[in-house]
Order: sequence, then structure tokens, then C-alpha cells
Amino acid sequence: MAASATIVLLLPLLHRGMASAMVLRLLLLMVVVVSCAVAADEGSVVEVWPMPATASKGGQTLHVSRELKMTAEGSKYADGKAILKDAFQRMVTLIELDHVINGSTQGLPVLAGVNVVVHLPADEVKPDELEPAGLTDCELMLNFGVDESYNLSVPATGNPIYAQIEAQTVFGALHALETFSQLCNFDFTSRLIELQSAPWTITDVPRFPYRGLLIDTSRHYLPVPVIKSVIDSMTYSKLNVLHWHIVDEQSFPLEIPSYPKLWNGAYSYSERYTMDDTIDIVQYAERRGVNVLAEIDVPGHALSWGVGYPSLWPSATCKEPLDVSSESTFQVINGILSDFSKVFKFKFVHLGGDEVNTSCWTSTPRVKAWLAQHGMKESDAYRYFVLRAQKIAKSHGYEVINWEETFNNFGDKLDRRTVVHNWLGGGVAEKVVAAGLRCIVSNQDKWYLDHLEVTWDGFYMNEPLRNIKNLAQQKLVLGGEVCMWGEHIDASDIQQTIWPRAAAAAERLWTPFEKLSKEWEIAALSARLARFRCLLNHRGIAAGPVTGYGRSAPAEPSSCIKQ
Amino acid sequence: MAASATIVLLLPLLHRGMASAMVLRLLLLMVVVVSCAVAADEGSVVEVWPMPATASKGGQTLHVSRELKMTAEGSKYADGKAILKDAFQRMVTLIELDHVINGSTQGLPVLAGVNVVVHLPADEVKPDELEPAGLTDCELMLNFGVDESYNLSVPATGNPIYAQIEAQTVFGALHALETFSQLCNFDFTSRLIELQSAPWTITDVPRFPYRGLLIDTSRHYLPVPVIKSVIDSMTYSKLNVLHWHIVDEQSFPLEIPSYPKLWNGAYSYSERYTMDDTIDIVQYAERRGVNVLAEIDVPGHALSWGVGYPSLWPSATCKEPLDVSSESTFQVINGILSDFSKVFKFKFVHLGGDEVNTSCWTSTPRVKAWLAQHGMKESDAYRYFVLRAQKIAKSHGYEVINWEETFNNFGDKLDRRTVVHNWLGGGVAEKVVAAGLRCIVSNQDKWYLDHLEVTWDGFYMNEPLRNIKNLAQQKLVLGGEVCMWGEHIDASDIQQTIWPRAAAAAERLWTPFEKLSKEWEIAALSARLARFRCLLNHRGIAAGPVTGYGRSAPAEPSSCIKQ
Repeated sequence: MAASATIVLLLPLLHRGMASAMVLRLLLLMVVVVSCAVAADEGSVVEVWPMPATASKGGQTLHVSRELKMTAEGSKYADGKAILKDAFQRMVTLIELDHVINGSTQGLPVLAGVNVVVHLPADEVKPDELEPAGLTDCELMLNFGVDESYNLSVPATGNPIYAQIEAQTVFGALHALETFSQLCNFDFTSRLIELQSAPWTITDVPRFPYRGLLIDTSRHYLPVPVIKSVIDSMTYSKLNVLHWHIVDEQSFPLEIPSYPKLWNGAYSYSERYTMDDTIDIVQYAERRGVNVLAEIDVPGHALSWGVGYPSLWPSATCKEPLDVSSESTFQVINGILSDFSKVFKFKFVHLGGDEVNTSCWTSTPRVKAWLAQHGMKESDAYRYFVLRAQKIAKSHGYEVINWEETFNNFGDKLDRRTVVHNWLGGGVAEKVVAAGLRCIVSNQDKWYLDHLEVTWDGFYMNEPLRNIKNLAQQKLVLGGEVCMWGEHIDASDIQQTIWPRAAAAAERLWTPFEKLSKEWEIAALSARLARFRCLLNHRGIAAGPVTGYGRSAPAEPSSCIKQ
Repeated sequence: MAASATIVLLLPLLHRGMASAMVLRLLLLMVVVVSCAVAADEGSVVEVWPMPATASKGGQTLHVSRELKMTAEGSKYADGKAILKDAFQRMVTLIELDHVINGSTQGLPVLAGVNVVVHLPADEVKPDELEPAGLTDCELMLNFGVDESYNLSVPATGNPIYAQIEAQTVFGALHALETFSQLCNFDFTSRLIELQSAPWTITDVPRFPYRGLLIDTSRHYLPVPVIKSVIDSMTYSKLNVLHWHIVDEQSFPLEIPSYPKLWNGAYSYSERYTMDDTIDIVQYAERRGVNVLAEIDVPGHALSWGVGYPSLWPSATCKEPLDVSSESTFQVINGILSDFSKVFKFKFVHLGGDEVNTSCWTSTPRVKAWLAQHGMKESDAYRYFVLRAQKIAKSHGYEVINWEETFNNFGDKLDRRTVVHNWLGGGVAEKVVAAGLRCIVSNQDKWYLDHLEVTWDGFYMNEPLRNIKNLAQQKLVLGGEVCMWGEHIDASDIQQTIWPRAAAAAERLWTPFEKLSKEWEIAALSARLARFRCLLNHRGIAAGPVTGYGRSAPAEPSSCIKQ
């Protein structure tokens, strides 16, 4: 279509008798444009998702050495935990996964290696060296607010040719390696991995520091290998917080050493996570630049707690919310958060607080009496519960995230460091930040992945800062999160439902606002997302077709990039 | 429920004044029965899928050593290609995948290792040693008819305790390792892998030698990593033939060196397989005991061939079937089969021959004239085409499989070694074997995986030997195959659609007839299949819920084993 338009434009020039040489040159250029367009249609276009902050490229194709090296000239980072080394190995495995590579690089321009410079020693700094080095705990290891920026350049020439990565922290370097991997593709002619369009100069930094995905292991148990696979797939679109909604009404799958009968509420013997599994998951995520936000939702969504400890229920016939009148309820919460603090090292913990139906408090005589004794209405008791749980979390070193009902009902009473997690709909974030509190955006009309009718463009166009003009208030929006609630989600369909729509949100959260695609650019954006979806498939992630509702089977035979 | 029934039965005994000691013993036994039943409900039951030919077990729980060894005392097999060593490593990785194992085996009965005895040297035999050793080509390496039997015993005592595997070929040993892996599960108390119910004595041998799964890479391209994942999942239920329907109307994704423009018919630049990818897939499968049956469907379902070679079409406006009147059609077929013979080493090749609409032959003047010249009606030309293609395949060393229309239309003219692939419906296999030909069963009303409305029990109860009483004729049924046609199948939903229904068919094809579950045993069978489905999930295979139609999302929050 671009070709025909160009021809039409050129015809008048011929009529007007322009120098035929110039016209011929224009025609030649048009032919080049057409053939590039054809090549693009053929699916060998290379683009990065999410779109980097800045990127310039050239026209040289390099071939990746079959012995690609990683060096660290000029780097301060000793990689004592092999985070970088392992990430590099994984990246090489990933780019080589798809086809047998047995071409010869003889006579071809070869990319010999990648030099990675990380400025902060990060986990190499001893605790007593923190202050003198001007570092805080946050910079010591992965946590909220860690610097995730990077530069990546791939020169067109050199002897040898080395790509250059530069980042403040190892986690920025990990993002750079991911971007690098997306510049590579298999060349069917040379039978090598090629890296097109060198020289590349990319600078990149996320727009929001909190870019999350929620998984729910209560409605359905998710085996540990499945959780790890989800973590891997998050890194491909640079999501950085796994919000683990561990427990809910239906099951309590996690070992809590302080209260070992809590996981009697698991669905079955096998459908459980030990504390060691949890440490394993947190470490797996950390080594990939993904934080794990643990949620223990109180006082609602907690029926399963009483399977092991029935006294936590208001009564044997009225089992939610947790018994506000009982001191042991808060002892158990304290035990859980104490155990959490040993394994979940993220700065935040999520205490839930959503959808609290207090009728079991008022209909159970003992609890009703307690309310009366303390001069509380139901709403007071709800507030009391949430605030008390917040204090317990703080005593264990956490800052707290709560679902938005807590703000909607008693926002002025919340701890000032509370992060409000918006989910009910749009228009809430602006109220939260106007009140001076921080906010995470997950409005369900756009960012709930279980809402299959919300298509990828709905995810992409959901702007967290809508209606928030004040710069100071914009900074209070930490970011956002897409939520994969588990009522109809288990190992069979989780990745298919998460992807590719979560990737659309991932770009909204990473890419600078001015670089995001606009409504009128939907066609090109759709094509680019389709190619990213196909890349996910080639990496073994069961991302669904872009077109249609969430989790749709492919509608008909088709090329991946057109579906 | 079993407990209450038992109590009811015992009450009369008390009334009748039976010796109270005996009654007490009976009550005690009942308590033991009840607690075992409760443990079973808790999901720690261990069962093997498919059900082995014979299996006896005891009551001793062993704990698997964290340094599980493999030995080969008494084995003749040198494992030059490390098939067995790699399979053992994979098996250990698989049983340790699910949870962190950090218990201590101190004081517990420990399974120290597995001794594997393989009688045939298999791939260690030099070609000139074949005859003296009494071996044929078939026994040299994986192929149709290779001995897949094995014995597996796990003693309850020993110093040290070693499991014993004995098999004729390494491929039997691989099946034994799979069975062994299904005896293992994670023990949440000891935090070790346990193997319950020793001593085990298992003998096993498949009922049918051909137990297949069809995949279709023409309607949607399947990335190589996805095909490999499918192969892995096949081994978990002992399926042994991957029927690769490579090409069809919509796309031609495979490199054919003899005719390098054929894969211009691929959907896009990236959606292609090189010959090296094909070798890689075949080797990947072979090392896992899975044969690869290549299909090149002619003369119908071949529109995509003409994208690179338009002269293969009857005309530019009438593109199927392949042009019967042109010698180059058969030269191309010869080139394809010649290239196949270098990489596809299975004894059979599949030449398709289904759904041939010959109207383009009679409506295209040139072809119509050719038919007249040769005194052929359309049906004669169809027969001529199929038989000529068969001869070409034979010239390259293959035996041929054809879809059943070839038998239905000119069965008496087919090469006598033709294997007829039944798909149109039931009642065909009996006609094929009555005519003295071999048959593979895939009746679409029961064994087409894309027919989502066929539930798992429909797959399980589909008996390949229905109405075939004569023993000689029964032997002509080589086995069967479930078919995962690709119109609505790509990387996002393939495993979810294949499993668990393919597993139901896998047991029908493996387990001795008398051991198969009967219609009245559906409830127990369903529970056993659900547990196998959950095992698949824990291994990272996206098998869907047992209940409901194929590829259904979980209907509600639930334990895996109840869904």
C-alpha cells in the first residue's frame, strides 16, 4: 500500500517533465522501500518490546559469534552470586533455542561478545561499607526503586566487534541483555544468529518503578515450576513485581512455621508450598530482577485460615471475616508476618482489606458483644482490624499496601505510608494522590486479566496518570499491575490468559509517555505486539493470539504474525 | 463412605454377641482402612499411567537418595550415545522439580540407586556384526516393532537398596524409568522424595506397537521448542510415534533441498524448519523412544506446494489437487521423498491421499485432455496418482501409510504392504484387516483431539479391535493415533488441547485389554486420570482439566485432583 501511494505521487512528476534521472532515482528509492516493506512483511523485522526510551539504528547486519563472550572491562561489579553470568547464559540459550545453528561466520561481520559495565558493586558491599560508599539498603540488592536504567550499543565495526552495556546496577544490565536478545533472530541463509541494523544506540529507563503481575494460588494451586515459568516470561517484557496473592477463601497452600496447621487449609496434601519453596521462588525471581510482593489478605478472603484453626472463624457456621474480637487472630497475623519477614524481602507487604462483608461479626453473639463493648459499629471494627494489621506489618519492617476499599472507607485514618491499590475502577488514583498517599493502579475495567472481554488495546491504552496533572502527585503513582485472578486459571491456561495482554500493559508502564503509541497508531502497534507474541511462543511461552478476546484459541489457520 | 458401610456391617456382629475381641480387631482394621482412605483423598496416592501389565506392591516407604545412582551390573548395553544416561538425568531432574528437597535421609530406609540391565547391545552393534548376532536393522536402533517391554522391581530392603530394571532394549529401559518416576512423590514431612509401597514388582509390555499422536504444522507453524515439549509429554504416557503432518493447503514450512522453492509456501520468513531442525527433532525424539512419522499428503491438501512452483497447480485459478498430468509433479514428489529418506528413518512414510477433490483436473483443459488421452476417469487418475506415489516411496526404502479413502476407493489395488489409516469413522478397521491389510485407527468420532466435544471417556473407551475377533486379523491392527489438527491450534493451546484426553487413548493403546478399566469403573478411572493430569501440570505440561470438553478452562476454584 505504501508502494502504490508512492507511485501515484510520482506520476505527476513525470508528466511535468522532471529530469528523468531524478525520477528514476525516486523510482529506485521506491523499489527499495517496497522491498524493505516486503522483507518486513516476511517477518524478519526486529523490534524491541517494550519500546525503549531512545533507540537509533543503522543498516549493518552482524552475525553473532557461536562462542559469544561476556566481558566486564571497566565494571565495578564482581558478580559474586553469578547473577550476571547466569543471565548471560540464559540469554544465549534463548537466542539459540529456535533453530539449529551451524553456519560459518567466515567472511561475515561477527559480533564477538558483550562487554557489561555495572557501576554499583551492589551485593558486593559489606554492611559496614554502606555509609562510606553513600549507599543505602535499597541499592545493596534488588528492591523497590532500584536503578533499572541501561545503555546498550552495538557498533557496526570493530576489531573485534563488542556490544557495550552500561548500567548502574546489575538489574539494569539484565534489562539490557533482554533488549539485546530481542535484536537477534535466526538467519535462514547463513544459518547463524544475526543482529540486524547495527549500529544500535539505545538508552532506556522505566517510566514507573512498580510494574506488576498478580498471580492467585488460592483459587487454584500453581506448581512451583509454573510460577517460575511465569517469572521468566515477566522478564521478557520487563515487568518487575510478582504480586503473590497466596491465600484466599478457597485454600491456604503456604507453610507458616509459627502456625503449622494453617496449611491444613490447602486443597490437598500435594498442593502446598514449603517455606523452602518460597525462598526458592524469591531467589529465582531476585536473580532475574523480579521482586516478590507477598499478600496476606485480611480480614476478608480468609476463610481457609480456619480449617487448621477454627477459632479464627466468628463461628462454625459463619466463617468470614476473621474474628475481630479475638486476640489470637492478631497473634496469628503476627506469626504470619514474622515468618514472611524471613523470606519476603521486598520493601512492601500487601495486607489486602478488600470486599469485607462484616455480617458474621454482627450475627455472631460473642463478636457482636465485643463490638458493643468497644463502642464499635461494623465499619469501625473493619477500620480497627486493618489499622492493627498495618501496625503489625510495620513492626516487622514492612511498608503496607492495601486494596482501595480501605482508602474509600477511612482513607484519612490509614498510615501515611500506606500504598493504596486501586482496583474497583478508574478515577480513584487521582483521589489517592490528591490525599497525599501513594497508589498502584489495577482498575478492573482495563487491567484484570480474567476479564477476557478486555482486549489488548484496552490494556495498552489504560493510562495510570489519567487526570493527574500535578507533578508531585504524579510521582505518588508508583506504577500499576495486571491481575491474573485464579477462579478459572490453573497450569493449563495461565500463560495463555496472561499473554499477550499483560505485555500491552508492560509497555504502558515502562516506555516514556511520549514514545507510547497513540490511538491512531493501533494498526502498527497491533503488528508489533503480534511479533512480540510470536517471540514469546518461540521461547516456549503459550501466549495467545493478539486478535480476539483474552485466551481465545486461534480463529483459523494463519501465520502467527497476523494473528 | 467405605467407612460408614463397614460400620453398618459390623453392628449386627455386636448384636449377635460375637467375641468382643474379634469385633475390636475388626474395628481396628476398619480404622486402618479409613485412615488409608483419608490419606488417599489427601492426594498422596501414587499410581502409574498407563496401567502396567502387572504390578504388585507392598507397604514400605523408601526415601530416594539425594545422590541417586545408576548402575549397569549385568547389562550388555554400552550406552555409546548416552541415551540411557541422559534419560536417567532427565528422570532425576523431573522427580526433583517440584519442591526444594533438603531433608536428611538419616535413619530412614533409603533407595540408593537404580540398576539397569539392557540385554541387546542395540546401537553398539557394527553393521557386519548384525547377522552373527542374530539381529536385524530393526533392533539396531529405534524403529517400528522394537521391543519396549521391561521389568521394574523396587525391593523394600537391601544393603544398599537398589531398584532393578531389566529390558531387552534401551527403549524398554526408558519406559521403565518413566514408570519409576511416577512411583515417586515429594514427602512434606521428611522434605525428601519418597517412593511408597515397596516392594514393587512390575512387568510391562505395550499391547499395540504403534501408539501415535499427530501434529499439524501447516495450519499453524509450531516452533521447534514447542514440538520438543510435545515429544517430552508423549513419553510420560508412553506414546511412541509422532505423526508429523508437515504440509497442507495453507503453508509449506519445511526445507526441501531438492526443490528449494517449496518452502516459499511458508507463512513467513521465520515460520520454517530447516533440514537441520528436522534432524534435530528426529534425534530428540529418538533419544526418548519416540519415532517420527513424516507425512507428505498427496495429491490433495497440497495447494501450498505451488507457491514456489506454480506449475504444480492444474492452473493459476484452480490449485488443487497436484497436477496429475505433469511428470514434474512426480519428480518433485521423488525429490521430497529422497530428502526425507536422509532424515526420517522410521520404517514408514505417510503419503496422505485423503479428501481429494478432482474437479480441477476435469475443469482444466490440459489436464482433462491428459485424462482422456490415458483413458482415465477422475477416480482412475486418483488411483494412478496414489499408486505411483507409493512406488516412489518404496524406491526410497519406505513402507507406506495412506488415509483410508485410498482403501475405500481402490483397496484391492493398493500395494499389499500399505497400512491403511482409518479416520472417517468406526467400522473401517475390521474391513481393512479382513482384506489382509494392516491398519492404524484414528476414527474421528472418538480420536480427533480437535473435536472438543469428545470427552476423555470417549477417548478411553474407543477400542481399536472392536468387532475384530480373528486373532490373525487382530495382529494386523498396528495400533492407533490421536490427531491434533491445527486449524485452531498453535503454541498457545496445543498442550491444553492434547492433554489429558490423549493420555486416555494412550492407556487404551498400551495396557493389556483385561487390565483396562470398564464402563462401570468410570469414577475411579476419572480420579486416576485426574491425578495423572496433575502430575503433567507439575512437570510443566499445560494439561487441561479432566472434566468438561477438551480445552476447557477450569470451571471454578478447585483442587487439581478433583477437576
